[in-house]
Amino acid sequence: MGHKYVYKFGAGKAEGNKDMKILLGGKGANLAEMANLGIPVPPGFTISTEVCKMYYEKHGEYPEEVKQQILDGMKHIESIMELKFGDPEKPLLVSVRSGAPASMPGMMDTILNLGLNDETVQGLIKMSNNERFGWDSYRRFVQMYGDVVMGLKPESKEEEDPFEVIIDKVKKEKGVKLDTELDAEDLKRLVKLFKEEIKKRKGKDFPTDPWDQLWGAIDAVFGSWNNPRAIKYREINNIPPDWGTAVNVQAMVFGNMGEDSATGVAFTRDPATGEKVFFGEYLVNAQGEDVVAGIRTPQPINHNTKTDPSQVTLEELMPEVYKQLDEIQRKLEQHYKDMQDIEFTIQHGRLWMLQTRTGKRTAAAAVRIAVDMVEEGLIDKETAIMRVEPEQLDQLLHPTFDPKAKKNVVAKGLPASPGAATGRIVFNAEDAEEWAKKGEKVILVRIETSPEDIGGMNAAEGILTQRGGMTSHAAVVARGMGKCCVAGCGELEISYRDKVMKAGGKVFKEGDWISLDGSTGEVIEGKVPTVEPTLSGNFGKLMGWADEIRKLGVRTNADTPHDSEVARNFGAEGIGLCRTEHMFFEGDRIIAVREMILADDEAGRRKALEKILPYQREDFYGILKVMHDLPVTIRTLDPPLHEFLPQDEESKKQMAEEMGVSLEQVKAKVEALHEFNPMLGHRGCRLGITYPEITEMQARAIMEAACQLTKEGVKVYPEIMIPLVGTKAELANQKKVVVDTAEKVQEEMGVKVEYKVGTMIEIPRAALTANEIAEEAEFFSFGTNDLTQMTFGYSRDDAGKFLKEYQEKGILEEDPFQTLDQNGVGQLVAMGVEKGRSTRPDLKVGICGEHGGDPKSIDFCHRTNLNYVSCSPYRVPIARLAAAQAAIRNK
Amino acid sequence: MGHKYVYKFGAGKAEGNKDMKILLGGKGANLAEMANLGIPVPPGFTISTEVCKMYYEKHGEYPEEVKQQILDGMKHIESIMELKFGDPEKPLLVSVRSGAPASMPGMMDTILNLGLNDETVQGLIKMSNNERFGWDSYRRFVQMYGDVVMGLKPESKEEEDPFEVIIDKVKKEKGVKLDTELDAEDLKRLVKLFKEEIKKRKGKDFPTDPWDQLWGAIDAVFGSWNNPRAIKYREINNIPPDWGTAVNVQAMVFGNMGEDSATGVAFTRDPATGEKVFFGEYLVNAQGEDVVAGIRTPQPINHNTKTDPSQVTLEELMPEVYKQLDEIQRKLEQHYKDMQDIEFTIQHGRLWMLQTRTGKRTAAAAVRIAVDMVEEGLIDKETAIMRVEPEQLDQLLHPTFDPKAKKNVVAKGLPASPGAATGRIVFNAEDAEEWAKKGEKVILVRIETSPEDIGGMNAAEGILTQRGGMTSHAAVVARGMGKCCVAGCGELEISYRDKVMKAGGKVFKEGDWISLDGSTGEVIEGKVPTVEPTLSGNFGKLMGWADEIRKLGVRTNADTPHDSEVARNFGAEGIGLCRTEHMFFEGDRIIAVREMILADDEAGRRKALEKILPYQREDFYGILKVMHDLPVTIRTLDPPLHEFLPQDEESKKQMAEEMGVSLEQVKAKVEALHEFNPMLGHRGCRLGITYPEITEMQARAIMEAACQLTKEGVKVYPEIMIPLVGTKAELANQKKVVVDTAEKVQEEMGVKVEYKVGTMIEIPRAALTANEIAEEAEFFSFGTNDLTQMTFGYSRDDAGKFLKEYQEKGILEEDPFQTLDQNGVGQLVAMGVEKGRSTRPDLKVGICGEHGGDPKSIDFCHRTNLNYVSCSPYRVPIARLAAAQAAIRNK
Repeated sequence: MGHKYVYKFGAGKAEGNKDMKILLGGKGANLAEMANLGIPVPPGFTISTEVCKMYYEKHGEYPEEVKQQILDGMKHIESIMELKFGDPEKPLLVSVRSGAPASMPGMMDTILNLGLNDETVQGLIKMSNNERFGWDSYRRFVQMYGDVVMGLKPESKEEEDPFEVIIDKVKKEKGVKLDTELDAEDLKRLVKLFKEEIKKRKGKDFPTDPWDQLWGAIDAVFGSWNNPRAIKYREINNIPPDWGTAVNVQAMVFGNMGEDSATGVAFTRDPATGEKVFFGEYLVNAQGEDVVAGIRTPQPINHNTKTDPSQVTLEELMPEVYKQLDEIQRKLEQHYKDMQDIEFTIQHGRLWMLQTRTGKRTAAAAVRIAVDMVEEGLIDKETAIMRVEPEQLDQLLHPTFDPKAKKNVVAKGLPASPGAATGRIVFNAEDAEEWAKKGEKVILVRIETSPEDIGGMNAAEGILTQRGGMTSHAAVVARGMGKCCVAGCGELEISYRDKVMKAGGKVFKEGDWISLDGSTGEVIEGKVPTVEPTLSGNFGKLMGWADEIRKLGVRTNADTPHDSEVARNFGAEGIGLCRTEHMFFEGDRIIAVREMILADDEAGRRKALEKILPYQREDFYGILKVMHDLPVTIRTLDPPLHEFLPQDEESKKQMAEEMGVSLEQVKAKVEALHEFNPMLGHRGCRLGITYPEITEMQARAIMEAACQLTKEGVKVYPEIMIPLVGTKAELANQKKVVVDTAEKVQEEMGVKVEYKVGTMIEIPRAALTANEIAEEAEFFSFGTNDLTQMTFGYSRDDAGKFLKEYQEKGILEEDPFQTLDQNGVGQLVAMGVEKGRSTRPDLKVGICGEHGGDPKSIDFCHRTNLNYVSCSPYRVPIARLAAAQAAIRNK
Repeated sequence: MGHKYVYKFGAGKAEGNKDMKILLGGKGANLAEMANLGIPVPPGFTISTEVCKMYYEKHGEYPEEVKQQILDGMKHIESIMELKFGDPEKPLLVSVRSGAPASMPGMMDTILNLGLNDETVQGLIKMSNNERFGWDSYRRFVQMYGDVVMGLKPESKEEEDPFEVIIDKVKKEKGVKLDTELDAEDLKRLVKLFKEEIKKRKGKDFPTDPWDQLWGAIDAVFGSWNNPRAIKYREINNIPPDWGTAVNVQAMVFGNMGEDSATGVAFTRDPATGEKVFFGEYLVNAQGEDVVAGIRTPQPINHNTKTDPSQVTLEELMPEVYKQLDEIQRKLEQHYKDMQDIEFTIQHGRLWMLQTRTGKRTAAAAVRIAVDMVEEGLIDKETAIMRVEPEQLDQLLHPTFDPKAKKNVVAKGLPASPGAATGRIVFNAEDAEEWAKKGEKVILVRIETSPEDIGGMNAAEGILTQRGGMTSHAAVVARGMGKCCVAGCGELEISYRDKVMKAGGKVFKEGDWISLDGSTGEVIEGKVPTVEPTLSGNFGKLMGWADEIRKLGVRTNADTPHDSEVARNFGAEGIGLCRTEHMFFEGDRIIAVREMILADDEAGRRKALEKILPYQREDFYGILKVMHDLPVTIRTLDPPLHEFLPQDEESKKQMAEEMGVSLEQVKAKVEALHEFNPMLGHRGCRLGITYPEITEMQARAIMEAACQLTKEGVKVYPEIMIPLVGTKAELANQKKVVVDTAEKVQEEMGVKVEYKVGTMIEIPRAALTANEIAEEAEFFSFGTNDLTQMTFGYSRDDAGKFLKEYQEKGILEEDPFQTLDQNGVGQLVAMGVEKGRSTRPDLKVGICGEHGGDPKSIDFCHRTNLNYVSCSPYRVPIARLAAAQAAIRNK
């Protein structure tokens, strides 16, 4: 009998099953599975992906064996359907569809109604008793086959589709507007005109022999595996090019054969809420595409989904068929153990299942279905955890726009920080604060933001910037605040002077209303109503299961007691990164900070630092108190000093006045601190080495707060972290300052505190020499934002320009600032962990870059044996779930 | 007999020898060696470094064995000298000196004339028949011992040396000015006053027992091993702290005991020219320090060194002693097989050799001596190659200041590009070009330079900048031009507006004369005469030997036919880096370049690029022609586009006029192209990917030139190099553009050219993923400048500020932009080579960063199996020699 190339299915059995996706493709495997379950699917056969490979190896020739098996497959369909392929009386029509092992929606070709010609159309008309239906089916087939198989397509971008041109011409001649207004004669004429056009432009007759039609269609489907669109899609989605596609040949069934026919789609549970109700829509006497086209309004399938007494449900209209459908959907869900999205057609009162697949669902539904199914005993906890996409949880944690609201999108930027916000436009941070004080909701619109804008960002409902990427200042700070942000919206034109912004051809003035969708990057004209999130008990259950399973700790990046509290409530097990520089901008302290910068000598700096000390101590007191019993990693000053000085003339003048110095002095200092590449300049521990008194003040503030809390009976675990270390000597230098100060403070206050001193690993050299650095470091925290910048040589403030293009051109699959580049940057992380632990086997290692909240990167962190990830407060649940999934996936 | 701690020498034999430096220190080993050779050295003994370790372990206590052996050593000296330690009639005086295994000049302590007290001084007076000599010796001893052993030092930086205060007081009372005007009585009084001061301030009597004196001195020498100065010196020079120092106790001999006494220093060959003549100076009736102090003028030792008939040579004055000295110097050179620097003293007509060591010499002398000694059969070629410091060769290749000229140094910057230059100050590039056209010699003084300044830099004699490090734009370009440059001279204050510069408290105006020493970083007031270099035949011979031995190829970084020719003449075996961007500034082409940048679309850019094409073709034609038969690596455009646009208002206006566009358009473009961190921005292959037409134009220009030359019968090997590659996909993208263009041009011109396409490895990620990148790259060239920037996270334009401090504080041993950081950056280089060759075993790998010309880095390149190094033209000979040394060192 030789090798098997063709797998039949139908009439309650099949030669394949759902586990044969590599050989039969996803669609073929699922059709076989349904048939095996005794579910009525239109009979058919699947030509395996092996034949696709032969097609490419033998340049379109098939061995006799394959031909014989296809012939046999067709007989199988004929016998079940009691029809005959090419028969003028009772003709069998088939669909020919691609079906690859991995889903590639819309990438390859499909042909319907195959088997029609001038003779068989008469049989179809007879069987359906509907002449218009017969000719419309024929017209559709010629049009589809002419395009897909014979290649009659527009020859340039300007040209319209040649078939549509003919249809338009016929409609014009007849004086009608809609396709549905064409009658059987018109459609018959279209078939003729289509064939003539194909002959004229392609030099070939349209095939009349159904077998010629079939072979042409099979060739076309195999050929479509290597169309440019499909190749690109595979490259982007990492689908191996040698998998090939299968071809599914299946009997056509029609939901538009009269009032006893229908078609519909349904979900085994509510995809919006997850409620366990059978949910769906149908249309009588219609085809699948009519449901999609929206010309007629679909009806609910059952009373559960009925919203209006005038509606007629399928349950009412065809109770027997509905009962059968309901049994099938239960069977399918029980079988696949997941909510299914099903398509069905009823032909002359007979139910056919066309497709079943895992149904898409909202985050709320995903959580509910996963938890319910565990409680129903359908799946186990691990499966439930794997069922929810971590990224989806974001929807549950932020306000969203009312999905029913109308939106006029005027521009689109990067979805930098999720959520939805509506407010009135202001163009600077001071206005934002002032307006907000008066009770106005504002959106802060900036070309880019800087640390000076923190107050305004905090006061605003959302932030919109023209420049900067997913890890620009605006994006990072907004995510930290859990505040909606659209960044890098390059199409905006902003004039600070005139206080106007141009977008989508419109001019927006200060005070105009706009709305931002931080989850899509959309900038929307006017107000859009928002919906507040509510966290269900199911959410808590799922998170609890995730916590049981995950190996990675989850901490948060938080700079204020408030953020710390939000994160702790979301389940954070400590602070992985507390940045101290944001604290320098609040209230009056910026004056003292600037005084320090302007000081000519150490004595002057120390005087100014003494003024900052009580503020910092208070900050740390608040944070350490909220995070009692948990570790708090505090990073010493990181940004270059010039970030604390004003950049524009007006602010410089103001600063000079406030400080009682000359404008020239201010300007001279700004000039002196100017750097060509501040990212690679005098910052991080380099500052602390030049000005040890800054590190000393910070260490003192931390330890005084920690000692005070210890006296009050609060258990605190401060971890002091030195940024931007590239050599062991740098860390040794700063560690000495910290330890000397810490010992002194403990002595002064007469109390002991458990504290650690460690370092960021964010300079490539630090990872390369991690064995040396671990001699000094008591813990590591990978700063993968900077590590990515330096490993790639990309400035995150500037790379927005070309990173987008890189992704479009397929040079980068993902934005490395969002998802850790495992191949490059990841090597340094793995090296850092391994080398660090070679020196200090119990070294605690975490990650505190943006990647700490990205599920793919979290999987990498799990595999690389990190101790914890740290992310912004609103991503803590996402990280908990992703960490659990990583543990399951890599068991 | 127990363990040996003390090694005696003198009277024609010794217990140690020159190979025992670890045990006896360098000085002790050499004194022993001379004694063994039968050369008259004052007898003495060396207390081994083991005793130093015991001193630290036992807190200053010595075992009885050591004491006994020292006693025995003293008897040994006494018997040879026929004197007795502490004897009031014929007292033996000794010197006590440190002597570590590695030279640590001036780091540790020395005591002379030890053994004097109120009794023995009388014996010395009797023996010398010179009362003043006796008391002066005593006075010097008390002063030295009081300082070094008893610790009578100034107590603050403000305080003067207490002994000098007393001397000044005595001179004042006597009304004289010079020490020599003090008589025996005065000196006797000084001894008394010194002792009183010591007693008063230190609470201890000055020891009168010579043995107490000796033990105090030994303790002090051992103790000085761990003085802060010595510790620092060892850290910097990587000398192990546990080596310890030896102590040499040696009989004092005096050259100032009358007219039959003398002292002198000599070299076995001329240290300035290397000529094989015995060369030296002496003074009758003098001590070593008198020769150094320069109060009396030393006389030449022989007729060879006599420059004036009035001089009396040692040869004439003491022919017998001279004959003996001449024999000794011959013997020493034959024995050590290197030019020796010797010190001698004649006491009462008897010759004593005090020291022999390898003599310091000029570069010219080093080359000549090395070659001569090979030809004399004294050393082999490899030894000759190891004898010349590669860095020294620089002296031979650039003009230098006349060493006899007086110099008033007003400031000091970084020695960024060697050579000497004198000229009149101008403050901008245009003035430099204009003045130079009029025949003026100018020095271009800038806060920093930018690519716009190329013309002016070329026109100037030398370049002085206030900012920027050893690899700043000014430094790199100047070294490429072989032009003197002092960079990063932070103490300057420059006002472009007023055209003045302040330095060393003086104001220099435009047109004022200054001189720059690019080898020392000195900025000198006024004109200083310079001496032009001449290359000797010996130089050629030595280079030839180096070429036979080295394994590394040596190429050059050159952007013009002239530089290429210079480098070829210096022995470059190809071009390792030809930067194309400098060409964009010459003449009118900048206008076309700017036209390209201002263009709104590809068509506009192509139009402008067509204008640039003929210029580029001409450039490449010239370079490829000069470098016929050798490979020429040409890098495609690297800098961000904004570098080609003017930055100040005036130039923007000028540009707008020249281009016929509005000032606003120019400003908008400058603004649009602005980047926060241009180093990590839109440059290198990122530009070529966004604007493939630029790469295409450059590939076309290269290939048209190469094809044309091939037609003319010239053999060319262009290698096209893509910069800033971080992923394989980037290189694949650009390679396709290059190959497509190259194939097209070859077809058009009907000729085939051997060409390669490769990449820079200068992004950390490129090294980490070199196995992938090598799938596309036909060669690698490590761009270690950028690789260092990104691996350390240091911007070379900004790091000057803290790198200096880092070296001072011992955080970095070396400037990583000068000497490759083998520990960090080197790991990436090694990884890149290994991974690259794992994919492509015959991958050709070079280095074209500044490190390609640094001897230590070249040694690393040899060990890492690179194929070649590439450096600026004037460093090619240095690299050839360093490569040969690396081959010898790592045999």
